[in-house]
Amino acid sequence: MTDTVVSSATREVVIGFGRPFVMIGERINPTGRKLLAEEMRNGDFSRVEADALAQAAAGAHMLDVNAGIPLADEPALLAQAVKLVQSVTDVPLSIDSSIVEALEAGIAVYEGKPLINSVTGEEEVLERVLPLVARHGAAVVAISNDETGISEDPDVRFEVARKIVNRAADHGIAAADVVVDPLVMPIGAMGTAGRQVFQLVRRLREELGVNTTCGASNVSFGLPARHMITGTFLSMAMAAGLTSAIMNPLHPEVKNAVLAADVLAGHDRDCARWIAEHRDPDAVGLRRRGGRRRGA
Amino acid sequence: MTDTVVSSATREVVIGFGRPFVMIGERINPTGRKLLAEEMRNGDFSRVEADALAQAAAGAHMLDVNAGIPLADEPALLAQAVKLVQSVTDVPLSIDSSIVEALEAGIAVYEGKPLINSVTGEEEVLERVLPLVARHGAAVVAISNDETGISEDPDVRFEVARKIVNRAADHGIAAADVVVDPLVMPIGAMGTAGRQVFQLVRRLREELGVNTTCGASNVSFGLPARHMITGTFLSMAMAAGLTSAIMNPLHPEVKNAVLAADVLAGHDRDCARWIAEHRDPDAVGLRRRGGRRRGA
Repeated sequence: MTDTVVSSATREVVIGFGRPFVMIGERINPTGRKLLAEEMRNGDFSRVEADALAQAAAGAHMLDVNAGIPLADEPALLAQAVKLVQSVTDVPLSIDSSIVEALEAGIAVYEGKPLINSVTGEEEVLERVLPLVARHGAAVVAISNDETGISEDPDVRFEVARKIVNRAADHGIAAADVVVDPLVMPIGAMGTAGRQVFQLVRRLREELGVNTTCGASNVSFGLPARHMITGTFLSMAMAAGLTSAIMNPLHPEVKNAVLAADVLAGHDRDCARWIAEHRDPDAVGLRRRGGRRRGA
Repeated sequence: MTDTVVSSATREVVIGFGRPFVMIGERINPTGRKLLAEEMRNGDFSRVEADALAQAAAGAHMLDVNAGIPLADEPALLAQAVKLVQSVTDVPLSIDSSIVEALEAGIAVYEGKPLINSVTGEEEVLERVLPLVARHGAAVVAISNDETGISEDPDVRFEVARKIVNRAADHGIAAADVVVDPLVMPIGAMGTAGRQVFQLVRRLREELGVNTTCGASNVSFGLPARHMITGTFLSMAMAAGLTSAIMNPLHPEVKNAVLAADVLAGHDRDCARWIAEHRDPDAVGLRRRGGRRRGA
């Protein structure tokens, strides 16, 4: 069994086979969120704080923190966001940037063992990010693309993942500290996007023995009733072996699909968590009119 | 590819790998439905008719018809129900009884090629049901238990399924006309129930090359918010290769999980069916207050 351990100052989270799925909250990310981007740029982090608290309350085991705002001082913003989020919640963080200096700034202020999001298979990225991960004893998300882009062939993506895992080992990073992201495409644009991920997740687990994660929301981009598509995607990917995802726990269709899949995978002992979540209909927005409550 | 073809007088349905999942409506079954049982016993089939129409309208590709009422003339009731349902819908039927005489009576009045539900691995059942299936050129559901009961070991259940497929061949019934039911236990009583089915479905598909079905609702027996558990179970089983199920298409959580899983498996070309179903929010009970409609 492969256990990826991450932590804050006071809490440890384990991503692993045979364990409950790890939900990593996706909301603290200004990409596509104009208002949040504008506020962060102006030093207003109130929405970051609110998003952190709401996602943790909804059951996120970890939070992804991204400060990618064009023409802003991303390293400074990311460090500030990481500090703020750690001051209001104790869930471990995924420090998310495509700029190495921003990752460095985020790690510098982080308390605990973070997940660094991300390294790709590109030579220059590998040789800049992996030493950083090794030096700080962190875990890292490995995205399975390289200089040639994102292959539509899952076998090519598998080989990129293998290369990153091997290169990480050269830097003294255990495979258990590499969480592979197979890359999720929108199913509305590419009908094979789901099958590719399921097949890749299975191979990554069986052949490389690594944990996996993905940005789940992307799969449903552009579709109506998209949260049902995202939730169903996650349950199917969990059936194939996916062990974590960057996702929105505030959408009941998404969160409930994950909790139900944990029940069905045998990772929710005696269905205790499911029953606790659904005993009180208010907890999942199922409040009945007239105030009647269902039995457990 | 294994195609199981069933038909009514005017419509053909194909259960197969790489095809949209086949939803078999479960409602026409007096087991646990006191009122329906009482009505059927008294010759009142109005609820049977209503259930047939509602399930077909909700998208059921086939309907299961069961008339198992204690101390009633099951063969006569089943024949009557089959005739009535065929008179109001054109979806092919699954003729469901554990009594061979009732299966015979149902087949005798059936127009088209039915699915016979079911044969088990018990010697006496095999030798009574398979000749009936062969004589009528029907397809048959094979339930993977035998004289020793239902094994908790999926390998034992796989061997029972293999025995039934082989015995069917001895009777001239092609493997394509045997749809194996791996048997679904309540996850609340047995934490391994989900994984057993996923593993078994995968082996049945890869090693025996047969189509599969199951009584899906059983998995969520006794749990709160059970339709979400059933829907998630179906999407995960579909990821493992399940090609049909006896289920309730009237529950949106169940039906939507199946439609979404078809999208993600690449069985809903250009997501056309999903978009058509969800373009109109009324169709899935998502009507917004104020009458606004979402775009497609």
